[in-house]
Amino acid sequence: MSEKVALIGSGNWGSAVARIIGGNVHNFDHFDREVKMWVFEEQVDGRSLIDVINTEHENIKYLPGIKLPENVVACPDLVKTCADATMLVFVVPHQFVSNVCKQLKGNVPSNCKAISLIKGVDVNEHGFQLISNMIQESLGIRSCVLSGANIATEVAEGRFCETTIGYRNKSDGELFRDIFHTPYFRVTIVEDVIGVELCGALKNIVAIGGGLVDGLKLGDNTKAAIIRIGLCEMRKFSQMFYKDVKDTTFFESCGVADLITTCAGGRNRKVAEAHVTTGKPFDQLEQEMLNGQKLQGTSTAKDMYNILSKKGLCHEFPLMTTIYRICYENLPPSRIVEDI
Amino acid sequence: MSEKVALIGSGNWGSAVARIIGGNVHNFDHFDREVKMWVFEEQVDGRSLIDVINTEHENIKYLPGIKLPENVVACPDLVKTCADATMLVFVVPHQFVSNVCKQLKGNVPSNCKAISLIKGVDVNEHGFQLISNMIQESLGIRSCVLSGANIATEVAEGRFCETTIGYRNKSDGELFRDIFHTPYFRVTIVEDVIGVELCGALKNIVAIGGGLVDGLKLGDNTKAAIIRIGLCEMRKFSQMFYKDVKDTTFFESCGVADLITTCAGGRNRKVAEAHVTTGKPFDQLEQEMLNGQKLQGTSTAKDMYNILSKKGLCHEFPLMTTIYRICYENLPPSRIVEDI
Repeated sequence: MSEKVALIGSGNWGSAVARIIGGNVHNFDHFDREVKMWVFEEQVDGRSLIDVINTEHENIKYLPGIKLPENVVACPDLVKTCADATMLVFVVPHQFVSNVCKQLKGNVPSNCKAISLIKGVDVNEHGFQLISNMIQESLGIRSCVLSGANIATEVAEGRFCETTIGYRNKSDGELFRDIFHTPYFRVTIVEDVIGVELCGALKNIVAIGGGLVDGLKLGDNTKAAIIRIGLCEMRKFSQMFYKDVKDTTFFESCGVADLITTCAGGRNRKVAEAHVTTGKPFDQLEQEMLNGQKLQGTSTAKDMYNILSKKGLCHEFPLMTTIYRICYENLPPSRIVEDI
Repeated sequence: MSEKVALIGSGNWGSAVARIIGGNVHNFDHFDREVKMWVFEEQVDGRSLIDVINTEHENIKYLPGIKLPENVVACPDLVKTCADATMLVFVVPHQFVSNVCKQLKGNVPSNCKAISLIKGVDVNEHGFQLISNMIQESLGIRSCVLSGANIATEVAEGRFCETTIGYRNKSDGELFRDIFHTPYFRVTIVEDVIGVELCGALKNIVAIGGGLVDGLKLGDNTKAAIIRIGLCEMRKFSQMFYKDVKDTTFFESCGVADLITTCAGGRNRKVAEAHVTTGKPFDQLEQEMLNGQKLQGTSTAKDMYNILSKKGLCHEFPLMTTIYRICYENLPPSRIVEDI
């Protein structure tokens, strides 16, 4: 049976994985050689981005300087991109997922499988609303999740890193591993979709803690302690609300490795450090420093706090709760070590 | 029953914990107020170090600027220091342990318990020779282990960090927690002496890997991948050779947190980075950069490699094996990512 891959999204990360997938489909007999990629039509320097991608094989706006394989074909129509696909790769900003699913509903083959590369979660009245669950429920297909210590540009340049794919059905995990794995982008598959996805969301809260420690100049030991406590609270929260989440997932790239990277660099860490050194509130720093990007750590901290406080569980998650209070209740940053 | 603590060692780390223990024995009824500390007699600026400690309550040579509690009493005689002790705190360089035990044999109370704060392992014909086992076997008493993301000076200054105590007998673990735990030096006790001790030894090999990645300027993702793979190989090795070692120990301060700190700073990382940037061999850099201190990562890598190669297990530990080969077989540093 031939599998056909469609990429839903073409930003920085989407283009980096397009390069990998476009190459990998040639390595196996069971993949169709063409990989369609949904690209939002826009003009760049007076030219259609889609035309540029399809003639020059480069996403000059979101991943300039990196050539894409010629079998990656940009397509402006979402439904046409996915109409004959059996493997959907979701790599759009998370606020677009719901609308994408609405358009795709009833328009994808029934044997279709999906994978979400999207970081972040929504919330609804029951708690976190996971992207993989949204895809599964709205399209009636199984969804994997890919998450790991991966910065798009470094992956595009072929620097060594690892990633984790969580699956429900092992054959899905293996198929998606085939299209993502390379010698420099090492894929491990684990039977734990939710664990992998929660790691990608919750790490941003811990990164706020890491940035506070940096701003307070407390040193490497204190920062390592915050990362460790954060990892343990991520695991505890995940297993408290989702019984099947596995301990071992937190030893994978999506867990400890991504957390280390996010606490070493990244915008959540940076803004939190600036909060200590400038005294400015987070929302002001977000506007000043992030050029329109959103600070996921603070909003996820708020979402998590709302869930915990509703259930009377804040005392069991002292680090996450203290980070929320520093972000939203004007607690002094030094309480990051005093209150946990 | 009253417990009496003796400190065997008075270097930088020994003095930092003397400050904590000297304070903590006042918080509980079951500890004798006096804490004897064995100090190797030496002259500092023409004065006896022991006299200075006992009159000015400061170890001016190994922890200058930090006051020790007055109930910490320096003593030049090892056997007298320990003669009436029920809790022995070993904090000497690991090459001295064997000789210390020889002198103490038959000279400590039979209800004595020990704890080792010593990082590093010896090897014998069977494999690693753990310090806690050496103490247990030579003195016939149980030994705990304390290890964590702890830099002596930061602990002495009261900066927040965590540590882990591994115990065989829970009451031992609780007693030692009582003398070490403070609000800024958080102790967790786990029933896993060997796991805690192996973490403290094996992390130094991984730190060599972290330094190589830094020297090669491969970026945060690659470094996080090396740390993660290192953590997993530490766990795999420990559990392969010591069946009772627990997964959860690697989530403690002695595991993931100490590994993060050691790969962020520390001499193993620093020398490995210089190996890449200067091309000089490790033994030369050790002499040039470490002012007489030893590079534990390379020697532990060699010890581990000898064990693995004797059992034909090198292929199961690609990171540790590659690090050994880069250190001792002139493999180019770039193989750190190519060979694993």
